[in-house]
Amino acid sequence: MKLCRYGPVGAEKPGIIDADDRIRDLSGHLADLDAAALAPEALARLAAIDPASLPLVDGDVRYGVPVTGTRQFVAIGLNYADHAAESNLPIPDEPVVFNKWVSCLQGPNDPVTIPRGSLKTDWEVELGVVIGTTASNVTEADALDHVAGYVVVNDVSERAWQTERGPTWDKGKGFPTFGPVGPWLVTADEVGDPQGLRMWLDVNGTRKQDGSTATMIFTVAQIIAYCSQFMTLLPGDIITTGTPPGVGLGQRPEPWYLKAGDTVALGIEKLGQQQQTFHAAPER
Amino acid sequence: MKLCRYGPVGAEKPGIIDADDRIRDLSGHLADLDAAALAPEALARLAAIDPASLPLVDGDVRYGVPVTGTRQFVAIGLNYADHAAESNLPIPDEPVVFNKWVSCLQGPNDPVTIPRGSLKTDWEVELGVVIGTTASNVTEADALDHVAGYVVVNDVSERAWQTERGPTWDKGKGFPTFGPVGPWLVTADEVGDPQGLRMWLDVNGTRKQDGSTATMIFTVAQIIAYCSQFMTLLPGDIITTGTPPGVGLGQRPEPWYLKAGDTVALGIEKLGQQQQTFHAAPER
Repeated sequence: MKLCRYGPVGAEKPGIIDADDRIRDLSGHLADLDAAALAPEALARLAAIDPASLPLVDGDVRYGVPVTGTRQFVAIGLNYADHAAESNLPIPDEPVVFNKWVSCLQGPNDPVTIPRGSLKTDWEVELGVVIGTTASNVTEADALDHVAGYVVVNDVSERAWQTERGPTWDKGKGFPTFGPVGPWLVTADEVGDPQGLRMWLDVNGTRKQDGSTATMIFTVAQIIAYCSQFMTLLPGDIITTGTPPGVGLGQRPEPWYLKAGDTVALGIEKLGQQQQTFHAAPER
Repeated sequence: MKLCRYGPVGAEKPGIIDADDRIRDLSGHLADLDAAALAPEALARLAAIDPASLPLVDGDVRYGVPVTGTRQFVAIGLNYADHAAESNLPIPDEPVVFNKWVSCLQGPNDPVTIPRGSLKTDWEVELGVVIGTTASNVTEADALDHVAGYVVVNDVSERAWQTERGPTWDKGKGFPTFGPVGPWLVTADEVGDPQGLRMWLDVNGTRKQDGSTATMIFTVAQIIAYCSQFMTLLPGDIITTGTPPGVGLGQRPEPWYLKAGDTVALGIEKLGQQQQTFHAAPER
């Protein structure tokens, strides 16, 4: 099942994607795709609906973040061995955990703002995991039972703010618009094994990232179990699981970052694709 | 005006503190103290109510976090020169910003869990700032206009998880129960200047921290303006602004951390006080 939220910012409605990849209006059955809608029994009720029975929605509408009310946007760093190498950082012994402020969340195709003064705004295609049920101190064996579904995430990053204004990464990961998510939340049953999904990202039509979740250092199940030792994962939370090689920071002979007017397109097998135009922040 | 939320976990009601420091039931006027209730016009409506006209509440009830629906729990590190010195860290050139997972938020007197395997669970009395209106790229001059009020926060920390399992601090700051907040949200008009408040913390009846917000390196206004460059501050967000000297990490001749059965009491002038008993995490 592919779920979405569509319509203007702040007035999104819930939708479901039909067999022809068209949006059908779910708002007759559900007020919104919030944390409560991700519970297994709630998802089972949606799965029992025939999408063809629902009103068809014009396909040109805007997509919003496919879940609302996310309280924690957890991120994993350096989770692909080749990406750690391009960043000149050792492969971590345990997952690197950081935070993206939830105020950076936005629809998958909304424009992204390059902050005033930023010289190092970068891209990162990532598999996002949407939590369906509360997870605290769960085992790796049980971890995937807590997943409602998966999403595409662009973990947009300002590298100078991330690493030169430490000691944490929190200044460079959560600027407004730095969290495009969607277009769809694809339920876990439809995705199956999350460790074999192709993923890609193009900048201005040139392929920059071309990888697979098969080369993650720590699997989705390991990440969930690990994070749940340090925090309680809540329904609606999103964990974005790291990026494969090919980010701007890793370009050779020298790093190459985004400038106003650049377009980034990215996608993950089974999860759909996004496209963002980057623009300069307005003057204060 | 002193606002609170009282009652069992998950079923808190809004309250207001009367002239005799007793709780009065606000639930006839307000469903809950959420982000919307912190807007200036909403606070003005509450201020027009005579607390003596409201039902008296038994003073022995539990206090919850005095605001619900907090989406971002921002924290500032090393914001007191003496605390930086006791931590053997240089005074930062700009604020150190980190994250506490919102799932760690809890009432001011609820018990705190020492995580399994933790040897370095520590205390930090801090002034918390509750945001009332959205703040993005605000100036220092305008910053305090975005404050709804102030709270006492114990920024409970697991030092090994914070600094030895980096590169971020996110593993050691957001364990469930690590965010006691309250008892009251005291509105900004009642607090006045936030830079002259005495603050203290006792462990098992012995004074460990005894400071004042007068010795902050970066003021509340500077912190808000600074953070708003990197993120959008949302109504209901809490910024906890750093701790004065005297944490466990800074004890001499050697660091001294909390163990099961220890009791921590803390308070800030005008904002009330908290008390927590620390206990061991249950076996899995």
